Amino acid sequence: MLIIGLDIGGAYTKIATIKVQGKKMEALDISSEYFPFWKFSNQFPQLIRERLPEEEKLIGVTMTAELADCFSSKEEGVEHILNSVRSIAKTLVLNTSAKFINAEKALESPLEVAASNWIAAPLLISKYVPNALFIDVGSTTTDIIPIIDGNLSALGRNDLERLVYGELIYTGAFRTNLATIVQSIPFGDNIVPVSSEYFSITADVHLLLDHIRGKEYSCDTPDGRGKTKEDALRRISRLICADMDMLDEADVMCIANHIYKKQIEQIQKGLLSVIKRQDISRNTPVVLAGTGAHFLGEVAIKQLGYSDIRYFENLFEKCIGFSDAKISISAPAFSIAFLLAIEEMVK
Amino acid sequence: MLIIGLDIGGAYTKIATIKVQGKKMEALDISSEYFPFWKFSNQFPQLIRERLPEEEKLIGVTMTAELADCFSSKEEGVEHILNSVRSIAKTLVLNTSAKFINAEKALESPLEVAASNWIAAPLLISKYVPNALFIDVGSTTTDIIPIIDGNLSALGRNDLERLVYGELIYTGAFRTNLATIVQSIPFGDNIVPVSSEYFSITADVHLLLDHIRGKEYSCDTPDGRGKTKEDALRRISRLICADMDMLDEADVMCIANHIYKKQIEQIQKGLLSVIKRQDISRNTPVVLAGTGAHFLGEVAIKQLGYSDIRYFENLFEKCIGFSDAKISISAPAFSIAFLLAIEEMVK
Repeated sequence: MLIIGLDIGGAYTKIATIKVQGKKMEALDISSEYFPFWKFSNQFPQLIRERLPEEEKLIGVTMTAELADCFSSKEEGVEHILNSVRSIAKTLVLNTSAKFINAEKALESPLEVAASNWIAAPLLISKYVPNALFIDVGSTTTDIIPIIDGNLSALGRNDLERLVYGELIYTGAFRTNLATIVQSIPFGDNIVPVSSEYFSITADVHLLLDHIRGKEYSCDTPDGRGKTKEDALRRISRLICADMDMLDEADVMCIANHIYKKQIEQIQKGLLSVIKRQDISRNTPVVLAGTGAHFLGEVAIKQLGYSDIRYFENLFEKCIGFSDAKISISAPAFSIAFLLAIEEMVK
Repeated sequence: MLIIGLDIGGAYTKIATIKVQGKKMEALDISSEYFPFWKFSNQFPQLIRERLPEEEKLIGVTMTAELADCFSSKEEGVEHILNSVRSIAKTLVLNTSAKFINAEKALESPLEVAASNWIAAPLLISKYVPNALFIDVGSTTTDIIPIIDGNLSALGRNDLERLVYGELIYTGAFRTNLATIVQSIPFGDNIVPVSSEYFSITADVHLLLDHIRGKEYSCDTPDGRGKTKEDALRRISRLICADMDMLDEADVMCIANHIYKKQIEQIQKGLLSVIKRQDISRNTPVVLAGTGAHFLGEVAIKQLGYSDIRYFENLFEKCIGFSDAKISISAPAFSIAFLLAIEEMVK
């Protein structure tokens, strides 16, 4: 029997497949597909049909893609997504109360399963580390979820509430438009207000700073051009209406470092509001996941004095026999599959 | 003889055509074409061939499209643009020293004609109002140019310098991503950090606030959907990850008003830096142009105590026999054509 965890985001669809044989997990496969809903939502049913294996399977779903602006409302988005999946196999959906419900029930109250993907990983973690601060720095957003006495102690239930409480921060390792992070940057002796166009993104910054390599730059580039450092330099120079005939590499590296610092501050702002409200002490274990776990999440929380740093992918080594960075990058998809696999095994 | 002024921007190409007969201007035609360079730059030569009349003509050019990220450098952009135009008729190009040079000479030093479109209108105004503060609020950017004793007294020559001096502000009436104007908005009793996606633009705000009508919304919508108020409400609600099932119209109107206020502040910041540096007194005439002249430019400068407000399109009524808002919206293109027409008439 295959247990498939799907985390269907606006830009990426992540698929975790666990093979369960009796009381044993036999194999694990994780993949991440760049699938921008705002461009191709009609092709989603086809994507899902093509990517999922033929064998007998149970599908677990969590999502955020219903916010994509190809849908006129979240309800429309949830319907399109769930109908695409449930036509393939039995489908269970994680709701915002951290329960799995079947797809038919989810369709009756779609807002209860909208934007629930932040719940999956802390729900799984809570079974292994009952007191922890979970930070997932993804390509687009950062989630901050406190786990207290085995319970998810997030205050926000939907994305709007989560923004208010600092539990959702709209900054990520790859896709964030630099013009949304800063309105001006120090440059030489001046403060330069920036262009508001979509010229460069955080993947350009982290490529230049050696946080990621070109082949890890998994989203589209803003100008449709390459993913080399030279391309990233050119894109970032446009943030201040310049190009590489006007600036040298050191100038752009200063800009990249400034943006990096500001992104750390964005995450710390959310962290501080969660930490203070929930009174989370500095010896609490911090569990990190996501594509920006090391260069954004870890840096942000260590600067605040937390030192018990754990990586999501290492928590399950005993159960699955290995650890793999893919588990961290696709934490919600993996968690959905893992949670359902445990249920299946104890049946 | 036709004198054609072209203002070739990244998103719009504006065309002003003046028919000159002996010592008289006989007719004026102005049009604005939404032509996003970053999508279609290869089709630009065709656009120009199709849009310009067959008759004998002289073309005057000013541009900003060379910054579009379809070009790897400004030089590449200037070359592509000028080669497209000069193949059609004799072409003069405005340089950043406020002189017209022929296209062949411009191609020898392309950076001297890059981003020169801000010079055209104040150069013309300086011949009618020798002391003035010129403000052009376009779809994407705002230009602030002091005219002192008949001279353009701007300090910046290229866009980078102009950003530094507050003479160029990257905020406009239509195309500005709201997530680049605010990082959070007050909502009820809370401050909500915003989504960094490309969900909604200033045209949505100004449509809701009755500053523009749907048919004036001349750029693409972020979601590719309609240009009604209902569409604008939906797009703006996504700024805080909501939709119209979660918010009511009054909530979104509060957000729109907040963004409007912030946009006025962005422009005032530039105004204040120019006004203070150049010591421009409050009785100096202010000449306004651009699609946001009334609801952004005039509001911003009046709040700073300036009251001698003049509209660009009215300055030339005596010469051309009428005034037309199109003149203001396409101020650089009109100015280029008008300046060359005057030269032609005195020949």
